[in-house]
Order: sequence, then C-alpha cells, then structure tokens
Amino acid sequence: MATPSSFGQATCDRVQKKLENLIDKYMSQLGASKLSLSSISSQALWRRTDRFQGYGKQLFRFTDRKDISYILAPTHEEEITKLVAKTVQSYKNLPLRVYQIGRKYRDEIRPRHGLLRSREFVMKDLYTFDYSLPLALKAYEEARAAYSRLFDELKLPYLVAEASSGDIGGDISHEYHLPSSIGEDNVISCTDCSYVANEELAAARPIPLQDQSSTENNNAKGDNIQAQVWRGISKDRKTLVNVWYPASFADADINTHALKSVLPGLDSGLEDALPLWHSTLNSSTFSIGDQRLPLLNIIDYRLGQHFANSLKTEPGQFPMLPQQTPVELSQLDAQYITSLTSGEPFNTIRIHDGDYCPHCTSGKLKVQKAIELGHTFHLGTKYSDPLGAHVQIPSAMIEEGLAIVTNSVGNLTVAMQMGCHGIGVSRIIGAVADHLADERGLNWPRAIAPFEVVVIPSTDMDEDARTVSHSLTEASGTFAPIDLALDDRTASFAWKMKDADLVGYPVIVVLGRGWTSDRLCEVQCRQLGLTESIPLDHLQEHINKLLSRL
Amino acid sequence: MATPSSFGQATCDRVQKKLENLIDKYMSQLGASKLSLSSISSQALWRRTDRFQGYGKQLFRFTDRKDISYILAPTHEEEITKLVAKTVQSYKNLPLRVYQIGRKYRDEIRPRHGLLRSREFVMKDLYTFDYSLPLALKAYEEARAAYSRLFDELKLPYLVAEASSGDIGGDISHEYHLPSSIGEDNVISCTDCSYVANEELAAARPIPLQDQSSTENNNAKGDNIQAQVWRGISKDRKTLVNVWYPASFADADINTHALKSVLPGLDSGLEDALPLWHSTLNSSTFSIGDQRLPLLNIIDYRLGQHFANSLKTEPGQFPMLPQQTPVELSQLDAQYITSLTSGEPFNTIRIHDGDYCPHCTSGKLKVQKAIELGHTFHLGTKYSDPLGAHVQIPSAMIEEGLAIVTNSVGNLTVAMQMGCHGIGVSRIIGAVADHLADERGLNWPRAIAPFEVVVIPSTDMDEDARTVSHSLTEASGTFAPIDLALDDRTASFAWKMKDADLVGYPVIVVLGRGWTSDRLCEVQCRQLGLTESIPLDHLQEHINKLLSRL
Repeated sequence: MATPSSFGQATCDRVQKKLENLIDKYMSQLGASKLSLSSISSQALWRRTDRFQGYGKQLFRFTDRKDISYILAPTHEEEITKLVAKTVQSYKNLPLRVYQIGRKYRDEIRPRHGLLRSREFVMKDLYTFDYSLPLALKAYEEARAAYSRLFDELKLPYLVAEASSGDIGGDISHEYHLPSSIGEDNVISCTDCSYVANEELAAARPIPLQDQSSTENNNAKGDNIQAQVWRGISKDRKTLVNVWYPASFADADINTHALKSVLPGLDSGLEDALPLWHSTLNSSTFSIGDQRLPLLNIIDYRLGQHFANSLKTEPGQFPMLPQQTPVELSQLDAQYITSLTSGEPFNTIRIHDGDYCPHCTSGKLKVQKAIELGHTFHLGTKYSDPLGAHVQIPSAMIEEGLAIVTNSVGNLTVAMQMGCHGIGVSRIIGAVADHLADERGLNWPRAIAPFEVVVIPSTDMDEDARTVSHSLTEASGTFAPIDLALDDRTASFAWKMKDADLVGYPVIVVLGRGWTSDRLCEVQCRQLGLTESIPLDHLQEHINKLLSRL
Repeated sequence: MATPSSFGQATCDRVQKKLENLIDKYMSQLGASKLSLSSISSQALWRRTDRFQGYGKQLFRFTDRKDISYILAPTHEEEITKLVAKTVQSYKNLPLRVYQIGRKYRDEIRPRHGLLRSREFVMKDLYTFDYSLPLALKAYEEARAAYSRLFDELKLPYLVAEASSGDIGGDISHEYHLPSSIGEDNVISCTDCSYVANEELAAARPIPLQDQSSTENNNAKGDNIQAQVWRGISKDRKTLVNVWYPASFADADINTHALKSVLPGLDSGLEDALPLWHSTLNSSTFSIGDQRLPLLNIIDYRLGQHFANSLKTEPGQFPMLPQQTPVELSQLDAQYITSLTSGEPFNTIRIHDGDYCPHCTSGKLKVQKAIELGHTFHLGTKYSDPLGAHVQIPSAMIEEGLAIVTNSVGNLTVAMQMGCHGIGVSRIIGAVADHLADERGLNWPRAIAPFEVVVIPSTDMDEDARTVSHSLTEASGTFAPIDLALDDRTASFAWKMKDADLVGYPVIVVLGRGWTSDRLCEVQCRQLGLTESIPLDHLQEHINKLLSRL
C-alpha cells in the first residue's frame, strides 16, 4: 500500500488534489464546467479593458520571438470573456458557468510566508455569464452559498466580509477570511450583530463628542482636544493633503481608505510625502503663479467644529505648511473637508477594537488579522461590454431588467452580466496548515488530509496491520471506505509515530500491546485530544464518528 | 448525475484527469513522489549548465521588477537538480524518484495542430537520482518498462525508437512514437527484425554498388552515376559544405543528421546558404589572405571512388564553388570526406522505404511519420556535476562503478547519476484523439475516456435509465464500478446519440424499443463495430468484457 514518501512533497500533492476535488464537487453543484486557460495572455487584450496600466508592475511582461507582447496572467477575466464572446451568441446558451484551477502570476513587491503570498500561486476562478441582472445576482448568491458550504466542510472559522472590488471591478463583492495572526488583512466584525467588513469598507459609528472624555483621558474633551497633522500627497503630485487628527493617535492610525473616499488619487504607499511635494514646487512644469496648487485639509470629527473654524480663520496658528516650504499659504488653493460625501462626520482614524458598530446600537467592533481565502465579485458588464460578449435576445424579453440593449444588424443584443469568484488554493493549504498546526506538527481537517487515517503497526505486526487496514478500506453497510495509509516502511515505530504527528493525519490507529493482549486497536485523535482502545468490530464505526467531527 | 457539458471543455478535462491518474499509477509503481516546480526558472541557473544559449529563441525570457532575469521553463532538469542538491546529502537518501505533471513553455517557430505542438503544453517529467551508474541504468530500464506498460494500457500501436539526446543531453535515450500521418517525426523500422530508430539516429546499410542499377534505372551504374551538389554552411559561417550526391535524388533527400556526424556545427535550418557565405567572404573580420576558409566536400558512396578522385585531382571539371564567388578554389582549404568516422561509406541520402536494414540481412526499412509521445534519457552527471548534486559515500563502496569521486572536506562524494523521462500529456490527448477518431467523432480508449459508458434513454425512460445506471456504478462480485454518465439532459434522443458519437464514449447503452418490449438494453461499441441486445442481468458482465478490449 502506498505511503507518503519521506520526501514530503507527495503529502502536499495529496492535500492539493483533495482540495481540488472538494472544489470540483461544489463547482459541479453550480453546474460549472471545468476548463483550463493559458497562463499567457496578451497585453493588447488587457489594454482593451484598461487593466494593463492599472496592474502596473504587478504584471510579469515579455515578448515572443515575433515581438508580440504578453503577460503572465494574474487573473483571467479578459481571456474567458474573449472566449465566451466568440462561442456564445444567443441568450439560449446562457446561463454559462465555467471555472478552472490553475497557476496565476503576480510580481509581488513583498512575497511572504511561502504559500500565503507568492509570485506564482494556484487559484480556482469561476466565471458566470447571464443575460439579465436578476439572473446574475441570483448566480452571485448561489456561488456565495456554495462557498459557504465549501468552507464549512473545511471546518474553518471563516468570516465573510463586505469588500471593495479593487482592481477586478464591479459593484458587489465579498471576501472569505480566516482569522490568523500571520494574516495581512484586517477584518472588522461586530461583537453583537452580524456586521463584518474588510478594513477598506468598514466604518465605525462616530463616538458622540460628549463621550470622548472616556476614551481620550489625557486630553480636555470636545473642541479642546490637541491636534496634530499627517501629510500626504496625490499620485499626480499636485495636491498636498493635511490630515488633522487628535494627538492621542499616531500617524499609523490614519485610515487612508477613508481619505481615498474624498481623494481617490491619494498615494497611500509613501513613507514621506514631502520630498515629492517639494520637487513638484521646484519643477518647471508647475509655475505657481499660473495655477494655484491645491492644499487639502481633512479634519477629524473628534477635533470639533471650533478647531475647523480656527484652521480657516487663523491658519497662522497652525503648521499649515511643512517647514522650509518655499511657498506661502496664500499661493495655494486651500480646501477644508470636515465630513464624508454622505454627510457623516469625517473619521480619519482606523477602526480600533471597541469602536462603535455602524449597524447596531449595542455592538462594539473587533479588528482581527486575517488571511483572505476567497473573493466573490458581481462584475456586471465591466468586461463583456469592452470585449463584445453580447447575446441576441428576443424583444419580448427586454423588460426583465437587462443591463444594456444595443441594436446590431437589426438584432437586439445585450452585454452579458458576469460574475467571478476566486478561491486561493495554495493559500488555503498554507492557511489551514498554519491555523491547525500545534507544536507536534500539522493537523489536517478531514476534507483535505493527505490520508484520513494512518495505521501504524508495532514491530512484527505488519500482517495484522494489513488485515486491519483492509477492513477499513472496504465499504461496508452505511460506511464509505476510509482513505487510509498503512505505514509499512522499515523505520522504527517511534519514528513512524513522530512522522505521523508531523504529517498531521486526522486519526492514527496503532497496533501495539493492546492488540497483542486483547485485539484492541489504539485510536488517537490529536485534534480532539482523544486516545481510545477499540475492538476491530467497532473500529470502522468509531473512526467514521471521529472523522465526522474533523 | 453529472453529464459532460455541451461546452465541450469539461469532457477534455475528464480525459486529462484520467490520463494524469494513469500516469500517477505507473509513477507510483516506480516509487516516485509527485511534486510541482515553478514554471519560472532563473536564467543564471540555466547558464550554469550551458543550456541558456543552446535553447536560444525557444525560451520565453523576462525580468521582474528588481531586474532579475527569468525564463518560462521548457523543462526542469536544472530546477530539480538544484533542489535535490540542497536536500540530499548522503547516498542513504538515494534512490530518489520525483515527478510532476505541469505546464512547460517553448516559443516554437511553428506551433501547429493544436495540442500536438503548442507554445504552452502539459508534460509529465520524472527525474531519477542514484549514486552509481549500474543503479542508474537499472532505473532507466525500470522507467522504460513502466512506459511500455502505460502505452500498452492506452492500447496504442506505439514504436520505441533509439533516439539522439539533443538539447537534454546524456548517453542513452529512447522515444515512444505513435505512427500518424500528421506526425512531425520520421521513425524508421525494419520489416523483419526489431530495429526501430528515429531518423536522426537511423542508418541504412549501404546498397552494394553492383546493385545500384536496379534502384537507379536512369543512370549508368557504379562510377558513372551523374552527380549534383547541395551547398550548406556551418553556424559560424566559416565553412562552406559541398555535398556531392546522385542526381536521381533531390536536395530534399539530403540527410542533414548524417552530415552533422562529421560537421556538428552545420546549420540545417537554412533555405539558402550562399548569401551567408558571401557575406562572410565580404566581411572585414575574415581577410582571406590570413586564414584559408574551409571548403568541406562530402561525397556520397554511391558516386564511387573514381568520382571522389576526380574531384580532388580535376576540381575544375566540377562546380566546386558557387557562381559569382569572389574567391578562387586555391584560396580555400578544400577537404574531402568519403566515409563516416566509423569507416562506413558515407550515405548522404535520407532513409527511404525499401533501404536495407543495418541490423539484419533480410529486412528492408520502412519510414513512418509519427508523433513523439514520450522520451527517456539517461543523463549521467550532466546536471548533477555543474549544479553540485553530490552525495557522501563510504570509501568501501567506491568500486561499484561510481562515475565521479571527489574529495571535499575529507569526505568522499560522488555526483549523482540522473535520468529524466518525459511524457507529453496534452500531446497524447491530441494524438489519441486524432488516431482513433472516425467520421462520426472521437473514439477514446477506455483508459482515458471521459466516461467508460454513457446511458441514453429514449423519451420518458429517465427513471428506468437511472435504475440501469445504478446497477452499473455499484461494485458487484468481481466487477469494479463502471465510470458512467447518464445523459438525462433535455435534448432529443437523436441529438444525444449524435453527441455521444462526437464525444467518443467507448460503450453506449441505449434504452429503446427492446427495453419496452423485452427489458433488453442495446449495447453499442463503435470501436469494435458491435451492437447487441443484452438483458439487465448480464449487462455488467457484458460491458466489462467489452471494456477489457478497449
């Protein structure tokens, strides 16, 4: 019987295969067909959807021997839409759901934690095509439900967060997160209600000013809170941004996502904005006499209206410009923002544990580091429109909430409504490994364990172990065959036990003293902290019960 | 029950999965562990084995954001050897066999026939590591035996040919070919004995000169055969090559592989060598007065010794130099070759049907177009040596035919003996599809059919079809469950029958009139040309018998 090789990689391959089979199962429930697109995509195609520039240096680029320009695809919306545009012409061929499991490429600035963020990674990407918005939204909900069932089967304590759509685009999106200390994302959830959002979208309900004293002990309350300034700059280097916020916080607390809601062009990746602004001031293309550069002041609501008024009327009292700036305030176009476009008071500070939930009146917010395992997007016609993925449709059906109707050669056509739904396959393996490991080794959930059970015989019990293994790998009654490895390698018993802990099989069956004396198998389960002696007759039932909890 | 989608790709995915599982089975028999290497490899690594230049424009090249140079790997000898060099230190950790199934990249000049030659393709590559040459040669034979079993199970009429090692390198290699009119390789086999070789290695036994008259009817025999000349040039553009051969053949018959045995640097990819030679003559770097350029004359044995002598003694009688050449023959270093390095007469002409077998006295050779499906290489230390894949070994074991023994820090170490063994996964799918297809559609061998059996019910027989399907998908007695699809889609019966032929299931079970009247299933097998009516009781046995022949 095959056992995992000591080389280790074979185990990992089984885990990945099991995860892929699990994904196949849930994709099949959605009626999705599996396909496999090239990892090579054309730059010209990506320019048609305006994504080539947006992805920037994240794209690995190259040319072939004929000097045609390509990229290594980080995602496949363009390619699948082009393919579907070519092959599907009528609304009768919809709905269409296709997915693949394959490698993606992203030239990450900071690859880290092995499988969690690498430049080459394995993803499952599902694409849905419908001819009406209501059908597309139904497809979105079906995909979300399948994701929940999948992550349930992985027995992970995942969070589903409202998310922003970022580079992928579209209107609605959700992220599936596994809370983890090594995570790179911050997920905000409410202690009382079901509110969960990723940090980019999450909002805290402003704390009424009269309550400030309780949270800001070291300052006078309300308008007398001491202010300090954080400075940023727009990507076009024209706008200097002053963010005025309470001195009890630090620069690292500034919520750049919130700033972007009023200044989408903010460059949030900078250590120090000032050298860039100074070089703008010195550049010949911006003669200050001709056009006044903007100076944007964003004022945190905690500082109060009085502070905001003073900033406008007595700017000399405040460090409105950085030291050694070669311009006067009067040479700039100073602007002042105190509230969000929604009219809510401007909260410039990241959400902290204990902030007020925006959805319920009682709850407090909790910030958790998390690993993003999956992401769902309703895309609408963002790709189908520029890439011409249209279907013909009878005029009688036009009222059903269709997005775009055009008339080509006398036929009514409509751009397909798309969705895309990703799962990080290699990342799940890394995240689950990290999440369930203890000091003795890995600890796989049953769904993706390399084997569900390992049988380890003491010296000279190989023959008996084969009998025991055989009884478990046959289907009997209501029990499905167990996916089992018999460790019949020549290594010592102690080494095998240690290796089994390292590999992290959900259940270990030991044939030891109990077997010799009373024909009892020792069944160990590290995840549940159980060790029991079970007679062979009850072994299959016992293990099936254990596995159903793992 | 899931049925293949009309989108088509899902069927292809099942075929590929089955082929991968089949490969997994035979790799597991070799004790090989599965792993997965990055598709991205570093140019620096490929320079260490001198392959970066050799692959030339076939490599897709790119740099990352830090300006480090990479390639998309066309094969993985370098990467696996580097990994093993890092992880394996002692002969006790050998033998090691690892393999992967994944994408490879080659910037082909002429991609063609879809899956048969594309720039991105799926390969299985197995790498073997041993510490002695005898063990490595044993591993080579074991891998070859596994390949034969695998291709046997695919029921393909494959040929195993002695092959040259080309870019991969090493001493021994074999190719596994499927004869096919759309093949790009020429495989030579003997009608009488077991001799099979690819065209590069194959040799014909020279036809005795007294027999020439029978094959060269239009010429006087022996020394009076009319000669003509073909001109080539070396890759360094210094050597002009005149090949003198019988006028009854044409330029296209010239065997450039044979020419390379005496001039390895011959540029065999040129339409016309003369402009290149003229530009050499005109270039300032080669002043003809200083060094005489070589003029290599290769003389086909059919032209006889008298012709060869005349060429040397009366060169003015022959077109030794192209017209309008700005040099005299006396300014060149003319050389004359009439036999191979082995001493055999020089045959400059490709092998043709009916040439004499070099291995037996009775057989004639046959030239077949073929598709290369697999290739085995014994590599020796070609990669382990430059990449430092050495193992420590006790001095007592040194006599066992070890390749290289060096002494580092007082320990005896030896470069690992490697083998590599490829199978073209996507290419097999394309080749098998082409080989077994007929005018009605594809026709898969059982081993990689998307489903072994499809059940197609007539109108209103879906319930009965489910019963029949269920009886076949359960294991019973000695019969394994059959991998079956029930076509319960809403399309018409006729459409489903046509679709089943297109997809190419090995066996079709129809529930039609015979079922209504006598509970008989109609079992169709297009490959065997059979249609039979079988009662449900005998259905499983009958289908199992059919499948064992497919």
